[in-house]
Amino acid sequence: MALIVQKYGGTSVANVDRIQNVAARIKADWQQGNKMVVVVSARSGVTNELITRAKALNTSPDDREMDMLLAVGEQETIALVSIALHAIGVPACSRTGAQAGILTDTLHTRARIARVTGGDIPERLNEGKVVIVAGFQGLSSANEITTLGRGGSDLTAIAVAAAVKADLCQIYTDVDGVYTADPRIVVNARKLPEIAYEEMLELASSGSKVMQSRSVEFAQKYNVPFEVRSSFNNKPGTLVKAHAKTMEDALISGVALDRSQTRVTVSNIPDNAAAVAAIFDALGEAGLSVDMIIKNLGTAGHANLTFSVNSDQFARTEKVVGEILRSLGSGSVRSAGEVAKVSIVGVGMISHPGVAGTLFKALAAAGVNSDLITTSEIKIAVAVAPDKADAAVRAVHEAFQLHEIVPVG
Amino acid sequence: MALIVQKYGGTSVANVDRIQNVAARIKADWQQGNKMVVVVSARSGVTNELITRAKALNTSPDDREMDMLLAVGEQETIALVSIALHAIGVPACSRTGAQAGILTDTLHTRARIARVTGGDIPERLNEGKVVIVAGFQGLSSANEITTLGRGGSDLTAIAVAAAVKADLCQIYTDVDGVYTADPRIVVNARKLPEIAYEEMLELASSGSKVMQSRSVEFAQKYNVPFEVRSSFNNKPGTLVKAHAKTMEDALISGVALDRSQTRVTVSNIPDNAAAVAAIFDALGEAGLSVDMIIKNLGTAGHANLTFSVNSDQFARTEKVVGEILRSLGSGSVRSAGEVAKVSIVGVGMISHPGVAGTLFKALAAAGVNSDLITTSEIKIAVAVAPDKADAAVRAVHEAFQLHEIVPVG
Repeated sequence: MALIVQKYGGTSVANVDRIQNVAARIKADWQQGNKMVVVVSARSGVTNELITRAKALNTSPDDREMDMLLAVGEQETIALVSIALHAIGVPACSRTGAQAGILTDTLHTRARIARVTGGDIPERLNEGKVVIVAGFQGLSSANEITTLGRGGSDLTAIAVAAAVKADLCQIYTDVDGVYTADPRIVVNARKLPEIAYEEMLELASSGSKVMQSRSVEFAQKYNVPFEVRSSFNNKPGTLVKAHAKTMEDALISGVALDRSQTRVTVSNIPDNAAAVAAIFDALGEAGLSVDMIIKNLGTAGHANLTFSVNSDQFARTEKVVGEILRSLGSGSVRSAGEVAKVSIVGVGMISHPGVAGTLFKALAAAGVNSDLITTSEIKIAVAVAPDKADAAVRAVHEAFQLHEIVPVG
Repeated sequence: MALIVQKYGGTSVANVDRIQNVAARIKADWQQGNKMVVVVSARSGVTNELITRAKALNTSPDDREMDMLLAVGEQETIALVSIALHAIGVPACSRTGAQAGILTDTLHTRARIARVTGGDIPERLNEGKVVIVAGFQGLSSANEITTLGRGGSDLTAIAVAAAVKADLCQIYTDVDGVYTADPRIVVNARKLPEIAYEEMLELASSGSKVMQSRSVEFAQKYNVPFEVRSSFNNKPGTLVKAHAKTMEDALISGVALDRSQTRVTVSNIPDNAAAVAAIFDALGEAGLSVDMIIKNLGTAGHANLTFSVNSDQFARTEKVVGEILRSLGSGSVRSAGEVAKVSIVGVGMISHPGVAGTLFKALAAAGVNSDLITTSEIKIAVAVAPDKADAAVRAVHEAFQLHEIVPVG
């Protein structure tokens, strides 16, 4: 008997059949005597339909009105899931984000959670009811409906779990858990039974699409362990939690691949710190994340910079850098083509300096070159040619024997 | 320059084109310098889609959850209309029923309005904004989303008009206004420039589908004059307001037709007042409206009752009456077939007793018989055979010269 918060994404509640499947899962856990809070997303497709309708009326619709519009998606789902639970004899009631006390700032379409009161959820749980909460939405300090942006329903689940002091938070999604590598690339990739918040964060920023960083950051900040698992089977997933050094700590937890990076070359800028700072400050202010930077000397007191950005941010990057270059009076910016980023992540590498050596040996043996490299305490990432990306992931997975559990020595 | 409340129904906002049409109308009135509050319904079809989805999960879904579900329809529309107004340069903001301070009791799916605060509508109007309010929904005293039932958006508009002390309330619908008779039956039916609340109420309860009685009752109670007009053209509609005796008062304002009545025969009940009262009390408690009652003596101290009910209420009527008959120990109930109800309505008839004579002469001349008759101060209704209904309406319309304005003598 535990207090469990579960979250089901849009594909898990896409239609009547799937809603019945989710209701049956909830019932099974509820029948064990657990108290249950269930956070749900909009049915998959609904949010896009609403956006399409809005854009047909206005190419740049107001953020506040978009929140009013998009919040209906989850409100529909909470009612339907409650109605489905009633049909199989489970007492349930729905709560909008506002009713569940998801209080946010006023940044419409990307609101941040300020506080979660939980509303009357504890009372309803004590009555034996399953409480169905609308994900993705909240109530701003100006008493307006807000939405939390991408990954918002995961964030709702973790925030509600923190507020009600849940014993367990389960994020049901369309993958089984967190793998040592993408199983579509590495056939013997292994599902991790558990992973540290820091590792999950590095994986999220390295191309893993399991969860958005902000939800993991929130979980880490409030120390909410959560399990990522599939709503389409009953296999245990991956538990994401604070790092605790145990016998099972692996040197490396996983290999991530991000195929959609663009290599940006900025040539012929003044070779001084102020010029470089001006460029990266402007990119930072524009919210553009830059990775894997190299600076090298060019001719006649000028320098060249190379770095990578997400490909879908290249156009804005080019514009921002171009403006700075005009103010500096020299230099040019261009794309040097697409690259893929291969990252290895693991808290075990902190105290094991040999990791980089193993990585580059494996890449060399596989005939993969890389000049752009970036590291953090628990991550090493390299840029490789897109057509070498899969081979690089396989070689690294093999070199670190990620298909087996290899304890830190 | 006036404060105008407008209401647009589901067909007027059914799709992107129609929403743009409504936005253009709102803009035209706003550009005249008017302050505007606009109440909108769910896009036509949306409410039925939501109901279908709920019923696929649960044949008798919970009322509270149905309100949570159905309220999304109007919430979608208010956002879309606001977004459409922004696109044509009109400052607008949407308000849910709760935000507009539509406070109701806790009778989910058929909540009654207890009070309307208007929320921050006056402040937003003073900022020059058009305020778009979700019809059909409110917030209960238990802080839950409620819906107002059939005709709920009209009711919202009239209640908001009362709260903000509007100069004018316009109910845009798919008809041009209130006619002396259904123009599909009577080719020279005339649109009434104005009509008294009482007449509108009698017409609503006599088969006219222009508006639900409850909205008219609310308008009468708070003395909110409103205009019924079409959103598909620019013709003036019909103004519904308190009765004031003027030169233009007509003897009869209109002829209404209700085709869907069933004649109910209850035979062989004890011939005493208690038995008759028991039957009508039970029907009243079950919310079943009975019209045009005849009682006549049968054999051996027993009596027979005949009355009419809406055909879609016949099954329930039969059940309720059957139960009472079992407790009385005698009698039987059956349908005596469908009838059509033809009603003439007019405040002018109060002081003109010759009206009934004109009516029956006209019916007789047209070969239409009737035995069931009911009257009020401003209405006379007769039941006729369904295949004679159109002829009866035409004959009566002609007899009272409703195609012309005939002042009360």
